[in-house]
Amino acid sequence: MQAPELDVTEWFNTDTPLTLDNLKGRVVVIEAFQMLCPGCVLHGIPLAQSIQRTFPEEKVAVIGLHTVFEHHNAMTPVSLQAFLHEYRITFPVGVDKQGAGPLPNTMSRFGMRGTPSLVLLDQAGQIVAHHLGQVSELQLGSEIGSLLTQEVVSTKGGTVTVDQSECKSGSCNV
Amino acid sequence: MQAPELDVTEWFNTDTPLTLDNLKGRVVVIEAFQMLCPGCVLHGIPLAQSIQRTFPEEKVAVIGLHTVFEHHNAMTPVSLQAFLHEYRITFPVGVDKQGAGPLPNTMSRFGMRGTPSLVLLDQAGQIVAHHLGQVSELQLGSEIGSLLTQEVVSTKGGTVTVDQSECKSGSCNV
Amino acid sequence: MQAPELDVTEWFNTDTPLTLDNLKGRVVVIEAFQMLCPGCVLHGIPLAQSIQRTFPEEKVAVIGLHTVFEHHNAMTPVSLQAFLHEYRITFPVGVDKQGAGPLPNTMSRFGMRGTPSLVLLDQAGQIVAHHLGQVSELQLGSEIGSLLTQEVVSTKGGTVTVDQSECKSGSCNV
Amino acid sequence: MQAPELDVTEWFNTDTPLTLDNLKGRVVVIEAFQMLCPGCVLHGIPLAQSIQRTFPEEKVAVIGLHTVFEHHNAMTPVSLQAFLHEYRITFPVGVDKQGAGPLPNTMSRFGMRGTPSLVLLDQAGQIVAHHLGQVSELQLGSEIGSLLTQEVVSTKGGTVTVDQSECKSGSCNV
Repeated sequence: MQAPELDVTEWFNTDTPLTLDNLKGRVVVIEAFQMLCPGCVLHGIPLAQSIQRTFPEEKVAVIGLHTVFEHHNAMTPVSLQAFLHEYRITFPVGVDKQGAGPLPNTMSRFGMRGTPSLVLLDQAGQIVAHHLGQVSELQLGSEIGSLLTQEVVSTKGGTVTVDQSECKSGSCNV
Repeated sequence: MQAPELDVTEWFNTDTPLTLDNLKGRVVVIEAFQMLCPGCVLHGIPLAQSIQRTFPEEKVAVIGLHTVFEHHNAMTPVSLQAFLHEYRITFPVGVDKQGAGPLPNTMSRFGMRGTPSLVLLDQAGQIVAHHLGQVSELQLGSEIGSLLTQEVVSTKGGTVTVDQSECKSGSCNV
Repeated sequence: MQAPELDVTEWFNTDTPLTLDNLKGRVVVIEAFQMLCPGCVLHGIPLAQSIQRTFPEEKVAVIGLHTVFEHHNAMTPVSLQAFLHEYRITFPVGVDKQGAGPLPNTMSRFGMRGTPSLVLLDQAGQIVAHHLGQVSELQLGSEIGSLLTQEVVSTKGGTVTVDQSECKSGSCNV
Repeated sequence: MQAPELDVTEWFNTDTPLTLDNLKGRVVVIEAFQMLCPGCVLHGIPLAQSIQRTFPEEKVAVIGLHTVFEHHNAMTPVSLQAFLHEYRITFPVGVDKQGAGPLPNTMSRFGMRGTPSLVLLDQAGQIVAHHLGQVSELQLGSEIGSLLTQEVVSTKGGTVTVDQSECKSGSCNV
């Protein structure tokens, strides 16, 4: 399924507003969170930071989405900015636009049921996986690795050569 | 690089001795450990168990290799058997054969430098990655996911269709 | 050293404002934190909650102190209230009063150098220990246990009878 | 209740065999474990090591007791010695003597129901607490702290002066 576009009112950690359309060509990880959600602070955000450290930025884009659906006065952009600073979050974070209903617009469009939610898009902007709550790193790594190899195969047509570029950090014997 | 064959004197958790040749067609994870190595008990073996839980057995084979290179009298097969029982290890475990030098034979053939070591083989028995010590689950998951997709692509020839079967456990929106 | 009095502008989780003077007769644990301080969220507050669960409320009083000294607009009482709700913090929390200098008043009076800070008072309101950052639970437990026994001894004068009432939860063989 | 005496066939990490009688005057922590018990390796032994690091040796004696009641051939003194070396266990460890029944002698005398078990003795050799399984460090610290204060009070007769020597590592404001 093609991912809907983001509806963001304000961006942090990027000079230019991002669109999923502009991110095509890269795997995209959307980490949807609320700054006062304990599961986001303990699991979701550390996982997003770990993805950012593990994969090259030009292949895997990590973006945060602040999907506030409760305690709106407690989680304003002013508070979010301090939160990003204190937790040393350096990937781009967009503030999801409040809509007419209880959920902000992007959260609704993606059918997210809570926070933290992690949505994985392939290089063509298709939704490949959608996780709510705590995520297995082995499982998520496998989903990302599958997309990274697919890209190489697509590029090389039918040649089906394996891309071993993931064997970084000197731990690969090939 | 093609993996050398195992040299095992005794197997646990399997009625039939395993060979890497017979495991071709599946991704293979070799977890080399010593039962009294703290890093193996705290990190290596739990990781191998997590791989076993995350991926289908018919696609990813997890095998343990007891590569004793110190305290030989303390880590005999009798002690290993109790260890496997107490730690609820259910994947096949082979005892690496002692050789003429300080390291057992399989450990030497693979060029392993210590324990825990994790060696990842693709479906053709080629060594794809070789990790010593603590391993990132995102990184390892990515390596395995890359191989699982590669297999599908190979099977389907140039069609380059993505295999989404990893989106299990109901968390996939595709 | 006798503890200075608290200077608090607003209380949460209590109908009546607290004073250290009124808490005399109980051991008091003051957990000073900022809601956007990662070390407070990961270590300080879980420790305070664990103290609250471990010791009887009538013997050990746990109170939080929101000592904001940076990002003031991001950590207003409105945001604090949502934070307390989401993190299920049920002990009384006071907002430390901003003063003329960079640090709020109570933080200054106690000479706290950062967050999280934990200050332990004996039953007479004397400062017994003052920890900054991550605290050893064995060490802190020892300090509290020492005070609980001391109380009994004081009450009984020179009789020096041991109070074994800490052997709760059925794990004591005496 | 006065603790029964140990019945040990072999000691490690000490030149002289220990008796509880000789340890009188110090608080004693007996950590009963089996080297192939996962709960002992993950919780019991790290806790005993943490006690050893937290309290001065002349006030709190930590001793291990290898209470094998299953897999006897797998947990011989030869294996235990390698285990102690690999896990960097430096406190004295005695091997509990096998008896006529299924449990070794000291384990029976103390009424231990499994491993890990932790038994806390006061300075007079009385059993103060007896924990099976995972232990709260706050709770255990409190029990030890209570005994350390009691000692001082006893020494000083009716003076009831508080011993603040636990406020070590520079974290005490008194």
